[in-house]
Amino acid sequence: MRPQVAVIGSGREHEERAERVGLLLAERGATVVTGGRGEVMAAACRGAKRAGGTTIGIVPGESRTQANEWVDHVVVTGIGHARNLAVVASGDAVIAVGGGWGTLAELGFARALGRYVVILEPGWGIEDVPRASTPEQAVDLALAHV
Amino acid sequence: MRPQVAVIGSGREHEERAERVGLLLAERGATVVTGGRGEVMAAACRGAKRAGGTTIGIVPGESRTQANEWVDHVVVTGIGHARNLAVVASGDAVIAVGGGWGTLAELGFARALGRYVVILEPGWGIEDVPRASTPEQAVDLALAHV
Amino acid sequence: MRPQVAVIGSGREHEERAERVGLLLAERGATVVTGGRGEVMAAACRGAKRAGGTTIGIVPGESRTQANEWVDHVVVTGIGHARNLAVVASGDAVIAVGGGWGTLAELGFARALGRYVVILEPGWGIEDVPRASTPEQAVDLALAHV
Amino acid sequence: MRPQVAVIGSGREHEERAERVGLLLAERGATVVTGGRGEVMAAACRGAKRAGGTTIGIVPGESRTQANEWVDHVVVTGIGHARNLAVVASGDAVIAVGGGWGTLAELGFARALGRYVVILEPGWGIEDVPRASTPEQAVDLALAHV
Repeated sequence: MRPQVAVIGSGREHEERAERVGLLLAERGATVVTGGRGEVMAAACRGAKRAGGTTIGIVPGESRTQANEWVDHVVVTGIGHARNLAVVASGDAVIAVGGGWGTLAELGFARALGRYVVILEPGWGIEDVPRASTPEQAVDLALAHV
Repeated sequence: MRPQVAVIGSGREHEERAERVGLLLAERGATVVTGGRGEVMAAACRGAKRAGGTTIGIVPGESRTQANEWVDHVVVTGIGHARNLAVVASGDAVIAVGGGWGTLAELGFARALGRYVVILEPGWGIEDVPRASTPEQAVDLALAHV
Repeated sequence: MRPQVAVIGSGREHEERAERVGLLLAERGATVVTGGRGEVMAAACRGAKRAGGTTIGIVPGESRTQANEWVDHVVVTGIGHARNLAVVASGDAVIAVGGGWGTLAELGFARALGRYVVILEPGWGIEDVPRASTPEQAVDLALAHV
Repeated sequence: MRPQVAVIGSGREHEERAERVGLLLAERGATVVTGGRGEVMAAACRGAKRAGGTTIGIVPGESRTQANEWVDHVVVTGIGHARNLAVVASGDAVIAVGGGWGTLAELGFARALGRYVVILEPGWGIEDVPRASTPEQAVDLALAHV
């Protein structure tokens, strides 16, 4: 199976960097896993599709119509915020781009499960979680740990 | 997005029919969604891959190593039996092949969510759930409802 | 800890029997666990409170306001239908009163987890699941298996 | 219904403060909700029971035997780490005492759901989350927000 990298986060101001992350992951053969919805999640999927990659969207509700248009495979969980656990668990590594409270929950879960996590600056400042200053560096670090 | 059909069930004696269901779904352009593990789940994935199709495995534990070798995209949920909800919610329609108590839970969830469900004989006899006597008929009915 | 018995089901026409089940469980010292909402769930809690018992409501949404007024302790899960797993898992035994598709999912989960289940007639007819013809008999059977 | 306050965290070195938090909550009429297992969770329950209070333990596995001995009501979720969402969702307010990665996930979820959260020092340093220097202050702040 191909490596799967979860891209988490939110915030319209982070979309450009998220799209770059998605594109770089696809170019390097990794499937992009996200929560399937808007902003950072949509941007990462869009970037991956621009490079001909594959995307998985794990949505919180009960209908696949929640997924953004760049998701190839929709996993409909029906479990609300708890789907954040599935998003990071499905990544062999995790890249955080911006983000709010849900992203903090994902960072916690990712490390609780032993997944490698890198935060693309700017973003949450969490003790013991490595940071990257560019999309290229974030992707390099993530793929070095899958 | 391509149609996604969930194949649920268990029991080694049902593998041959499950493999046929997976193959027919793939031939007709549907992605096969399963719980990602053995017996009926593995057989449906194997059938889909024999026809060059695509498979998604939604596993209950916290590691992608739980998935059978015919799964293309592994969604690692970490939520145990509750992943059964995600399996059926991710199908535009659901085909049940054999099955135990977990399959019964999936049948209930699928109908609670309004998904079309068909039971391939023999299998659970549940009031108001249509039945099919052959894999071909089960796939016809499922794809007529996506 | 006191025994906990889950009462599952739905349907306004089953409320009287559900209230009787809740009352009998409370009289015999068992805590009543339900999904915390209306119809059978509310009736079972109301019966338990009439007998001075204790009730736990495990609700699907993100707010405790979802619980009916006879719930003493509200567990807010945020996981939608997947909370059905928690309802039956929290019972040392399970009594089904009436019920729809969600109840079928609960029956499946309860048996997958090895919980004793009894169906109070009328209700789902599931192979290998014992039935009781009166609330008294259902409670007797459930408490004999905790 | 009585107020419910979730106490989250881990670490043997934080048990004394957690026990004090549990005791103060019980003295002031709040039910203590925890993840039901050891260390901070057990200490908070023990404190509550010393003051004659009521405790709810929401455990990750499939058996009530996972709960510590000071839990009155066990909710067995079967959903692993995802039960962290239910723990904080079930609190009208949340107090964090020490803690590891799972606690970080809970902090994120609590705020995503709009629950008031206070971190008892020392503990995670999260932007925009208020801190308290003593168990008394943490309990005061939490109860002022229910």
